[in-house]
Amino acid sequence: VAVDEELMGPSGGFSLDQLMELAGLSVAEAVVNVAPSAQTALVVCGPGNNGGDGLVCARHLVHFGLDVHVCYPTPRWADREPRPLFRGLVKQLSNLGVPFVRAPGKGWQGPVAPEGCGADEGLPRGAYDVVVDAVFGFSFGGDVRAPYDGLIEWMNAVGDERGCALVCVDVPSGWDVEEGPRPDSLCVRRPAALVSLTAPKKCALGLAPGTPHYLGGRFVTPSLVQAHDLVLPSFEGASQVTRLN
Amino acid sequence: VAVDEELMGPSGGFSLDQLMELAGLSVAEAVVNVAPSAQTALVVCGPGNNGGDGLVCARHLVHFGLDVHVCYPTPRWADREPRPLFRGLVKQLSNLGVPFVRAPGKGWQGPVAPEGCGADEGLPRGAYDVVVDAVFGFSFGGDVRAPYDGLIEWMNAVGDERGCALVCVDVPSGWDVEEGPRPDSLCVRRPAALVSLTAPKKCALGLAPGTPHYLGGRFVTPSLVQAHDLVLPSFEGASQVTRLN
Repeated sequence: VAVDEELMGPSGGFSLDQLMELAGLSVAEAVVNVAPSAQTALVVCGPGNNGGDGLVCARHLVHFGLDVHVCYPTPRWADREPRPLFRGLVKQLSNLGVPFVRAPGKGWQGPVAPEGCGADEGLPRGAYDVVVDAVFGFSFGGDVRAPYDGLIEWMNAVGDERGCALVCVDVPSGWDVEEGPRPDSLCVRRPAALVSLTAPKKCALGLAPGTPHYLGGRFVTPSLVQAHDLVLPSFEGASQVTRLN
Repeated sequence: VAVDEELMGPSGGFSLDQLMELAGLSVAEAVVNVAPSAQTALVVCGPGNNGGDGLVCARHLVHFGLDVHVCYPTPRWADREPRPLFRGLVKQLSNLGVPFVRAPGKGWQGPVAPEGCGADEGLPRGAYDVVVDAVFGFSFGGDVRAPYDGLIEWMNAVGDERGCALVCVDVPSGWDVEEGPRPDSLCVRRPAALVSLTAPKKCALGLAPGTPHYLGGRFVTPSLVQAHDLVLPSFEGASQVTRLN
């Protein structure tokens, strides 16, 4: 958290646009690494920056040749979305013809898709080779409310299916960033892979043995590594992502 | 040009931050493709967006493990630089400890480095395995004035050396984007490689036979390809760059 804030602060000089672009690209690269033969993907996006990383990831997956759907059940859509970056990210996906699909579960009466985007009744189980969980990130706490409860239940059902890889962005949705799965709360149960962003997240200790853990985001400076006692691995070639285990 | 404008306009939804980040990353990827064993690089940046692509490229080359210097002789520095994106790009390089080196040639009395950045007398010939030409891009026309005349002469001397690859961003500096080298004007003479951005540039016909020509920038939509009669190649895997010849 502190590292991201310093990168984007006056002493770091990065814009959110830049960091989100590199983070989302690294997640997309991890997805094709985890599931190199995947042809279809669903990216499930939450209301905050974790969801923004998902929107960027979805766009790169389209350019990588996958058939991509997005589920982004936020009321802050189109005209009502005050963040120009997020309006832009949705526009970019819409221009690529990406369908926005309806969130499953009760309690969500919002629109299916941002204005002007193709809508789809979607979310059939078994339809996707990969599902990307970009619902909640490192700052999540408290209760899981609609429509996100239905989404997490749906992702857990998907995670139990053969042949569908559930790839989590930064922190599996509903997990505590340090402690891992929260026993008394709804959260993602069986990630097939985790992509930590900026720095490895301690909650990765809660992954099942052998679950791939990646680090994405190749923009941390040596002075930040030193100031925060980070231990970062090396990356190969021009890759934006590296596997940690 | 028109394609970039549409991508960044209201119908495209991209910010310059995003497109420059992806363009500069693709150039850095092309550099390590052209010169995989390079350890030292100088990135020479002009005053406009071509120079901004160079600043992004320089940062990624640092993360790729190269020892990188930057020459960026623009008076629009630090406090006097009105563009937050460019102030940020310089700050990011400064935070990585990248030295800014003095422009060669007469006629330039400006500062060596943006305020707060390490300055170096630099630009020794023979010191760099790669030199990246990010001085002028597709919109260049007219005369080459100081300090850019000295920079182009210096790059031409470098381009004649063995063991130094001169990689040009989008359009070799001083070339016409369509017609290639301008016979009556100072321009870059012997690019070792060209990285076209967004779409292949016609001036690539003016390259010496066998000179690698890359395309970088993986963000053009099928509808723009259709609207502008573009013929774009495919990219491999998660790569942001593809070789055209």
